[in-house]
Amino acid sequence: MRGHAITSNPTWVLKRFPTGMPVPDDFSLEQRAAPVAKPGELLVRTHWLSVDPYMRARLSPAKNYAAGQKIGEMMRGGGVGEVIASESPLFHNGDIIQADDFGWQPMTTVAAQMATRLDLSAAPVQTSLGCLDMPGLSAYFALLNVGRPKAGETVLISAASGALGQIAGQIARIKGLDPVAIAGSDAKIDWCKSIGYRAGINHRTAGDLTAAIAKACPSGVDVFLDNTAGPIHDAALLNLNTSGRIVVVGTVALADRFDRPDIGPRFLRRILVIRARIEGFLLDDFEAQYAEARSQLTKWYQEGFLEAREDVAEGIEAAPHAFIRMLKGENFGKQLVKV
Amino acid sequence: MRGHAITSNPTWVLKRFPTGMPVPDDFSLEQRAAPVAKPGELLVRTHWLSVDPYMRARLSPAKNYAAGQKIGEMMRGGGVGEVIASESPLFHNGDIIQADDFGWQPMTTVAAQMATRLDLSAAPVQTSLGCLDMPGLSAYFALLNVGRPKAGETVLISAASGALGQIAGQIARIKGLDPVAIAGSDAKIDWCKSIGYRAGINHRTAGDLTAAIAKACPSGVDVFLDNTAGPIHDAALLNLNTSGRIVVVGTVALADRFDRPDIGPRFLRRILVIRARIEGFLLDDFEAQYAEARSQLTKWYQEGFLEAREDVAEGIEAAPHAFIRMLKGENFGKQLVKV
Repeated sequence: MRGHAITSNPTWVLKRFPTGMPVPDDFSLEQRAAPVAKPGELLVRTHWLSVDPYMRARLSPAKNYAAGQKIGEMMRGGGVGEVIASESPLFHNGDIIQADDFGWQPMTTVAAQMATRLDLSAAPVQTSLGCLDMPGLSAYFALLNVGRPKAGETVLISAASGALGQIAGQIARIKGLDPVAIAGSDAKIDWCKSIGYRAGINHRTAGDLTAAIAKACPSGVDVFLDNTAGPIHDAALLNLNTSGRIVVVGTVALADRFDRPDIGPRFLRRILVIRARIEGFLLDDFEAQYAEARSQLTKWYQEGFLEAREDVAEGIEAAPHAFIRMLKGENFGKQLVKV
Repeated sequence: MRGHAITSNPTWVLKRFPTGMPVPDDFSLEQRAAPVAKPGELLVRTHWLSVDPYMRARLSPAKNYAAGQKIGEMMRGGGVGEVIASESPLFHNGDIIQADDFGWQPMTTVAAQMATRLDLSAAPVQTSLGCLDMPGLSAYFALLNVGRPKAGETVLISAASGALGQIAGQIARIKGLDPVAIAGSDAKIDWCKSIGYRAGINHRTAGDLTAAIAKACPSGVDVFLDNTAGPIHDAALLNLNTSGRIVVVGTVALADRFDRPDIGPRFLRRILVIRARIEGFLLDDFEAQYAEARSQLTKWYQEGFLEAREDVAEGIEAAPHAFIRMLKGENFGKQLVKV
């Protein structure tokens, strides 16, 4: 059989390491032949790709928790697709699978051992890239296991309408906490309130952010789920209550100055005075509890307690654009690419 | 009865808030009459005064965990003395007591409810200002309850020969940990090694402190007991292992820039990548466990497992000098004033 679908497989590769905020020209689209699955692999037709903040750190020679991406290598990230040719007894052709290591290409190969077969009756398949998997699980563990909020406490969440923040806010509401959103537009804040956030702050128009948080959180902040770092972190810390906790989940506000030191005021004296706890979060550390949390998230989703907003870019060509707009906070909801 | 001892009671008062590092001229010595104990109070002859890093923060109008000291008010701090006139049924004349709120004066009054009668057979009385009380208890809880080290882990301790650090290092040794000292002279480092620290770094001569810590801690740092903040903190954080912990116990390196922001590199990205935990410590939060910890410390002391080095300034006149040299790290061991 000959034809475009098989011989042409437009594939994004990393052209150079971004300096500061990534730009489209850091990536190049190459025409490649469709790959062939080796034993233990699956040839997969990509349906959805996920772009996530953690991927910024991979585009750097600096040490990170995720393995770095090399110059000239194919871009990789989470995806959902259909098994076209299984070279593993674990999967059959036609299975819909999710894996963290899809290539940014329409036809890609995935290691069978790293893939998960999706239950098509449970939820739309792309929720396995959002509320029911990595971002949803991250929200669950970061808030509950690291933040350890007590009933009634105020939980401030930055990037509150994003893939992780939207789920964290709704879990906070379910758990009887007092969730307050920080996001980058009035429309996002309005939507955050519609899904359960008690109040919200548009950080692009708030002016004095420290004062705006104080106004929105009259009892102070007990737990801050920090998806951004930068000035939002600083303002949140100045509103943190005694024995307050900051869970460092992401640093997307540093995406434009990734390989330079982040210079600014340091707060060790304040951390001491209020006995704050600041703790970094990585989902991998909670692997032993994934199944339990996924089952709880799925139950909430099916019962209608979790709303999951998506921002969908169309076509493989749009992948770098979707990635960059997500880093800039221009997405509204979980950023996906529909291939 | 008339005479110098009763009518003349040289008393240190705060003349002005220090700007940066305190200087002798921030304090003034006033001749006052000996105070008179009101009902519920004790008139006490001061034997020992304690000067401690937390007192720097009281000499400021800024918000702090300890109540601020007002201009023109008598300086206050921990002390040990003999009850001369008890106006409380709780104490008798002749009792030796310890309290946190002695005036910097030879004759002072103390609220009976805030005083503790000392057991003269247990240990030298001034240990109630050092290894068996505030600094010792702080070392105990900061290391064990907040740092939560696991057997064999490397514990890095700054101001390692100071009142808190010397006890923390010895507890770490008792608990089967691997304690490494940071201090400000070779003599201090030698002494630290003699009491159980496995290695040590003189931060004044080390040059590249990050490299020096890496060399002294070949397995990295699991717990950092931070008594200083500043450049020592920065270098320790860069050596912290994955899931490492920093207990912010003190910020004495900021004593000379107390009311200005501490500007420098921020490490949120690194905290995320290594999932570090940074947590402020205040002894008061552990009050429910004081008795148990004090009894353990006393047992170790009596069994010879805790060495307590003191640096004694003589006479009430020396109090500000002793305080300032402690802030500068010029003391060698727990800084006391013998009145």
